[in-house]
Amino acid sequence: AERGQILDGASIAKSIRSKLKEEIVELKTKFPTFSPGLAVVQVGNREDSNIYIRNKLKFSKEVGIEAKHVKLSTTATQAELVSALERLNGDPSVDGFILQLPLDSSEPIDADFCTSRIDPAKDIDGLNFWNAGKLSRGHLKDVLIPCTPKGCIELINRTGCTNMEGKVAVVIGRSKIVGSPMKDLLINCNATVIVCHSKTENLPEKVKMADILVVAARQPLMVKGDWLKPGAIVIDVGMNSIPDATKAKGRRLVGDVDFESCKPIASWITPVPGGVGPMTIAMLLQNALECAKHRLKKQSQFTWSMR
Amino acid sequence: AERGQILDGASIAKSIRSKLKEEIVELKTKFPTFSPGLAVVQVGNREDSNIYIRNKLKFSKEVGIEAKHVKLSTTATQAELVSALERLNGDPSVDGFILQLPLDSSEPIDADFCTSRIDPAKDIDGLNFWNAGKLSRGHLKDVLIPCTPKGCIELINRTGCTNMEGKVAVVIGRSKIVGSPMKDLLINCNATVIVCHSKTENLPEKVKMADILVVAARQPLMVKGDWLKPGAIVIDVGMNSIPDATKAKGRRLVGDVDFESCKPIASWITPVPGGVGPMTIAMLLQNALECAKHRLKKQSQFTWSMR
Ligand SMILES: NC(=O)C1=CN([C@@H]2O[C@H](COP(=O)(O)OP(=O)(O)OC[C@H]3O[C@@H](n4cnc5c(N)ncnc54)[C@H](OP(=O)(O)O)[C@@H]3O)[C@@H](O)[C@H]2O)C=CC1
Ligand SMILES: NC(=O)C1=CN([C@@H]2O[C@H](COP(=O)(O)OP(=O)(O)OC[C@H]3O[C@@H](n4cnc5c(N)ncnc54)[C@H](OP(=O)(O)O)[C@@H]3O)[C@@H](O)[C@H]2O)C=CC1
Repeated sequence: AERGQILDGASIAKSIRSKLKEEIVELKTKFPTFSPGLAVVQVGNREDSNIYIRNKLKFSKEVGIEAKHVKLSTTATQAELVSALERLNGDPSVDGFILQLPLDSSEPIDADFCTSRIDPAKDIDGLNFWNAGKLSRGHLKDVLIPCTPKGCIELINRTGCTNMEGKVAVVIGRSKIVGSPMKDLLINCNATVIVCHSKTENLPEKVKMADILVVAARQPLMVKGDWLKPGAIVIDVGMNSIPDATKAKGRRLVGDVDFESCKPIASWITPVPGGVGPMTIAMLLQNALECAKHRLKKQSQFTWSMR
Repeated sequence: AERGQILDGASIAKSIRSKLKEEIVELKTKFPTFSPGLAVVQVGNREDSNIYIRNKLKFSKEVGIEAKHVKLSTTATQAELVSALERLNGDPSVDGFILQLPLDSSEPIDADFCTSRIDPAKDIDGLNFWNAGKLSRGHLKDVLIPCTPKGCIELINRTGCTNMEGKVAVVIGRSKIVGSPMKDLLINCNATVIVCHSKTENLPEKVKMADILVVAARQPLMVKGDWLKPGAIVIDVGMNSIPDATKAKGRRLVGDVDFESCKPIASWITPVPGGVGPMTIAMLLQNALECAKHRLKKQSQFTWSMR
């Protein structure tokens, strides 16, 4: 394969959003009461979360999804958060919602307990244990797939790699939100999957085996060009803000992959920013629309011919 | 490490059972109403299932667990099976139960739908999606772990390998009941895990990397000695009945590993029979006791000092 091709998440995400927009317009025409609704729950006031949420709300609006922001103070208790989530479970104007992580709270809150209180049918980030269990056991029908790994699969497919049989995929990271569901999806795609993490020894040796490499390690610029198998597809999930005196803000955003040294060796590589980030939001919108369509179907104004 | 040591599941399982028996006697002395109860639900009449179930009931009795066999006919419908499961969910004499798989039914029954109707707190095989989700996301507190993979970890630990950091573990197979939860547990033990299955190319090359190898592929005698990394720990989950004219029954039981060629290369290896099989039953009893203790604790006759 040709080397150094850029997997342009920003423009792929844009085209996905415009398809979603068209589909929503069509559905609204056919079903005048159809109005997909999304909510984002935030605890506290982290700067990065504020930016992510602003983008999520902006793009929701752009494609025709009604989005609301439920913001709790840093002093909110777990009980208060759970009742906010349960209110959204019961709110017919909200088809799906997410709890923005990490929480910014002065109270002891168990985030996993809280995400598992989200109705599985409204759980757009796929973090409820019920959804995680379905995903991890290969039940991909009727399950919401976490947005970031879903976007990574979409990116891999866009390189032309739609059949992963016989391919080796290496995932660096095993978090609930990225690494673990990513591994589940790759296994489901029939790749042979190697799961690496901070306790892995000789990481470059494992990375060398990867036809497909997904890095979600929160380690700025960790993966170097000479670690790669020539021709690998490289998906960089990392978003790290590092000091950079040459920038006006004194910082810049980098991935977990050393883009400069990896680009000439990889067949395809995602940039940071403009790779996985915009895809995550596009998948969030896609999941929200799926929830809304599911409800529409259940309300049985839906005909089988729609899909 | 020394080569060719036999990991004697039969005797390890026996010592686990006698510990369980002691613990149950002790609990019954302290709490006279304590009476752990297990049920095994069977649909149909498969010969192999009959044998497994007979063993499960026999060993339950041996350690002091009240076990009942709920046998439905091959013509039972899904609705009938689900109501049998729901009856057990509500039955205070049953602390935990399993649905024996595969089902032997003339009716269309979705086994996953049914196992997910089992109360997560009584789900001794850990197949409810809620339990699978917890396990696959590393929440091992308060979750029932599928018996076969749990037994495999116990066996690995018994070799002296209690810290898997920096080790490579290869799992062959990705089924819901063995391969997938096995991989989850190994990741949780901090091994670097390679997941292989029928679509994996060049399997011997992957196996060669394994410090720890777990084979659950349903492929008689597949793994050969020259595939192994010298000194590997080899856990053979396979139970395959193959023709053998030299035997009275005309058949014999073999694993997925070619024991003869692998034994001299491995540091430790499980035999078949007498390796993983008896451990699976021991873990079933352990899980049943865990359920019973959990209930006892909830009934709060339990003091924190007990554990
Ligand atoms: N683009 C997007 O839309 C999104 C980007 N992100 C970004 O992706 C990255 C990962 O996010 P997240 O999964 O939440 O991060 P976490 O910090 O939760 O997890 C990081 C994982 O990487 C592993 N790890 C850490 N150091 C190393 C190392 N030196 N070598 C190998 N593995 C290592 C950790 O291992 P261990 O388990 O042993 O600790 C852990 O499993 C972050 O940079 C985050 O900002 C996250 C979500 C969305
Ligand atoms: N000792 C015990 O207590 C128990 C023993 N067993 C035994 O363990 C074995 C596995 O059981 P189970 O997990 O239920 O089996 P399944 O048949 O459900 O799964 C077999 C797995 O092995 C994979 N596989 C099949 N052929 C190959 C191959 N040639 N190379 C690599 N992988 C392959 C399959 O891949 P794919 O997904 O691509 O099809 C599948 O994931 C069986 O022999 C069974 O009898 C099971 C339970 C308990």
